[in-house]
Amino acid sequence: MIKPRTPPGVMELLPRDQIAFARMLEVIRRNFERFGFVPVETPVFELSEVLLTKTGGETERQVYFVQSTGALEKTAAGVPELALRFDLTVPLARYVAEHEHELAFPFRRFQIQRVYRGERAQRGRFREFYQCDIDVIGKDALSIRHDAEIPAVIHALFSELGIGEFTIQLNNRKLLRGFHEGLGIADGEQQMLVLREVDKLDKRGVDAVRATLAGEPFSLDAAIVDRLLAFVAVRSTSHADAIAQLDKLAPGREAMAQGVAEMREVLELLRAYGVPEKNYALNFSIARGLDYYTGTVYETVLDAYPQIGSICSGGRYDDLASNYTKSRLPGVGISIGATRLFWQLREAGLIATADSSVEVLVGLMDDARLADSLAIARELRAAGICTEVQLEAKKLTRQFQYADRSGIRYMVLLGEDELARGVVTVKDLRRQEQFELARPELAAGLKAKLEQQRALQGR
Amino acid sequence: MIKPRTPPGVMELLPRDQIAFARMLEVIRRNFERFGFVPVETPVFELSEVLLTKTGGETERQVYFVQSTGALEKTAAGVPELALRFDLTVPLARYVAEHEHELAFPFRRFQIQRVYRGERAQRGRFREFYQCDIDVIGKDALSIRHDAEIPAVIHALFSELGIGEFTIQLNNRKLLRGFHEGLGIADGEQQMLVLREVDKLDKRGVDAVRATLAGEPFSLDAAIVDRLLAFVAVRSTSHADAIAQLDKLAPGREAMAQGVAEMREVLELLRAYGVPEKNYALNFSIARGLDYYTGTVYETVLDAYPQIGSICSGGRYDDLASNYTKSRLPGVGISIGATRLFWQLREAGLIATADSSVEVLVGLMDDARLADSLAIARELRAAGICTEVQLEAKKLTRQFQYADRSGIRYMVLLGEDELARGVVTVKDLRRQEQFELARPELAAGLKAKLEQQRALQGR
Repeated sequence: MIKPRTPPGVMELLPRDQIAFARMLEVIRRNFERFGFVPVETPVFELSEVLLTKTGGETERQVYFVQSTGALEKTAAGVPELALRFDLTVPLARYVAEHEHELAFPFRRFQIQRVYRGERAQRGRFREFYQCDIDVIGKDALSIRHDAEIPAVIHALFSELGIGEFTIQLNNRKLLRGFHEGLGIADGEQQMLVLREVDKLDKRGVDAVRATLAGEPFSLDAAIVDRLLAFVAVRSTSHADAIAQLDKLAPGREAMAQGVAEMREVLELLRAYGVPEKNYALNFSIARGLDYYTGTVYETVLDAYPQIGSICSGGRYDDLASNYTKSRLPGVGISIGATRLFWQLREAGLIATADSSVEVLVGLMDDARLADSLAIARELRAAGICTEVQLEAKKLTRQFQYADRSGIRYMVLLGEDELARGVVTVKDLRRQEQFELARPELAAGLKAKLEQQRALQGR
Repeated sequence: MIKPRTPPGVMELLPRDQIAFARMLEVIRRNFERFGFVPVETPVFELSEVLLTKTGGETERQVYFVQSTGALEKTAAGVPELALRFDLTVPLARYVAEHEHELAFPFRRFQIQRVYRGERAQRGRFREFYQCDIDVIGKDALSIRHDAEIPAVIHALFSELGIGEFTIQLNNRKLLRGFHEGLGIADGEQQMLVLREVDKLDKRGVDAVRATLAGEPFSLDAAIVDRLLAFVAVRSTSHADAIAQLDKLAPGREAMAQGVAEMREVLELLRAYGVPEKNYALNFSIARGLDYYTGTVYETVLDAYPQIGSICSGGRYDDLASNYTKSRLPGVGISIGATRLFWQLREAGLIATADSSVEVLVGLMDDARLADSLAIARELRAAGICTEVQLEAKKLTRQFQYADRSGIRYMVLLGEDELARGVVTVKDLRRQEQFELARPELAAGLKAKLEQQRALQGR
């Protein structure tokens, strides 16, 4: 006998939580589709040679290698032929480069699939998790206007998810670079190290960060550190304030001017997109993967749960697929780590276990009524109602128990008496009440009830 | 520069084919849900120790092993810790055994996920493919009535897929065993070998099969072989014929009597379930994994494309999870290999490339109209219409080209003249015609068009 268990670091759900999770993914998918993104799915594994490029970022991500029984010995290069994707961006780059001549640009794709990282197993860290990505990929060029569309998608999506107020925090990598250059920190690598230190403000406290930045290898003057800390503390409080914050920045280098202009255009377009100003703000501390993003960057936080961190992040990049094609493919995109998000929302009590996807259980009180039960189930299913039939005439209390444990809300009962009167009894197990419906109106009556319910839940 | 390509043996689709495939999966999912099955998802990898049991069937299936960068060396036992699932049945067994006390029985789950097999790469053979499974799992016992529900699901599902007439072929393992015992072939292993020979009838011809069965190790009399060949040739032509075929069988051993009784009950219930008799038939040659199934077995064939083979198969088993729990968990289920099915239906011309999921492209003739375009897009999206906005005022012919290449059917145009008149021009690119809608009626007018279209396509 083997103990049945999953590997550590995966999220496996009981059916009613799986239903709640599937609904969350469905809201995400629906919003991606409404905004005109088209679906792509890629294989879970890629050729190692294709997936693992020289940038080395993937070693931090702890790649999982794959090999079949017949090829357990490693390949000549010492690395198995296949590896599981660790994000959806590299597969997108490979996909777009591979199918470049079959796609229309700008290419707008969404992808909702699982990715794999050999993380150290710990609470809330997953080795297998869903990512929900959108990207718009241009050929040679891509208008900054696409950068403004992304927050509109985020806004629509998280509004529909109904998990409370949120703020889309915006920054721009050119602006960030320009600011650092203005402080005399010209080297990109150095800028990244500085920002990484500044990012520890909450954890280490301002004095410790000051001390680090004053010491080797940074050796920054106290005045420079002051300006740096003031800069990264900027959070705009309204649209007008965001514009005012941009105006306050020293014109400085070319990068700064360009970054400010881009940010301004994005902010203005957000109004045309109808994103309420309470839902976006400047945050000059956001950097996100400095080696990858080159323009606008996004993070999204739940106002009441800042400790969850960013629930939707991304940005603009200059060239998606330089490893695979000579074509220049600039793009902008975001990613939602849906598994971690769901897990955290559930921990925070913002997502409840769902009712069963089974809406009606047709009870069976007597074997002689089986054909009637099956006929009723056919009617209900034809009306689009998810229906299960109790196929064995167990004790009624056991049938109720089963419905209750399964989270099925309605139970339909066909007693002799009701049949004689041409009616059917419907029990609402949630409200602990029951009512009768005339036999010919059963499907329509239940459908109306269920639709009312769905409308109440905003589905 | 690395050549962008996928590993062999995977099906990766361009967006419009991906949309067609997603719709097929959606029809499958919807039917599973309507019949009261609840969703389960399991991790793509399982612990090797849990996944790989002693039965050895998995070696035939060429398991893929998984190991992270940090653990490229094999484990002590010589086998990596993780392995990709090769079907959805073993993960189901693990899941049910693991969560036994949290589930209500009969447990009815559907699962639509990819599975992995290290097959030799060849046309139409996949190393990664979707399986769409339903199973009903009982505790200690499960009524034969559930066996009759399965064809009702198959019937509803393939009717809605609209891929032509199909026949659900039925057999029963007890009946098969009883028949062989009646011929003096008592050993289960021997029965399996005989059936495997008989299965080669089409390929090898009747004379070759006869010769094999007369020789070692079978040494069957010519009369026995005759009875065998007559038996496996049985295909019922109607409900009444199916019953008559059952009546014709010699009562024989206990297994035979039980198999006939089970089959009779399933056939009678199929009528109550409303499965038309043209859609099911007895086929005594079906065996399916003799070491696993113990009662009813199913195969489904497209009447016009028998060469495709079974598109949906399964059966009844006595005990799902004997490797993981002492509880007896009998069940019945089916599986659809959706990737292979989609690939074959496309080859046969039964599934066409879909239009884009983007229903409307709002064109842009002049940058000054951008805010109007965005306002219109918001209205359309609020009405549930998947809408893309042309964000750059390119030449109109290029915008049409883009819509056409992307498979977007409708294009909305806001010319100066139309705006002045309070109307909007809609171009139907499929029909090459255009019409005007009053600005306030745009969303409702387009929605009506799209719903009409969906109804025509049966979606």
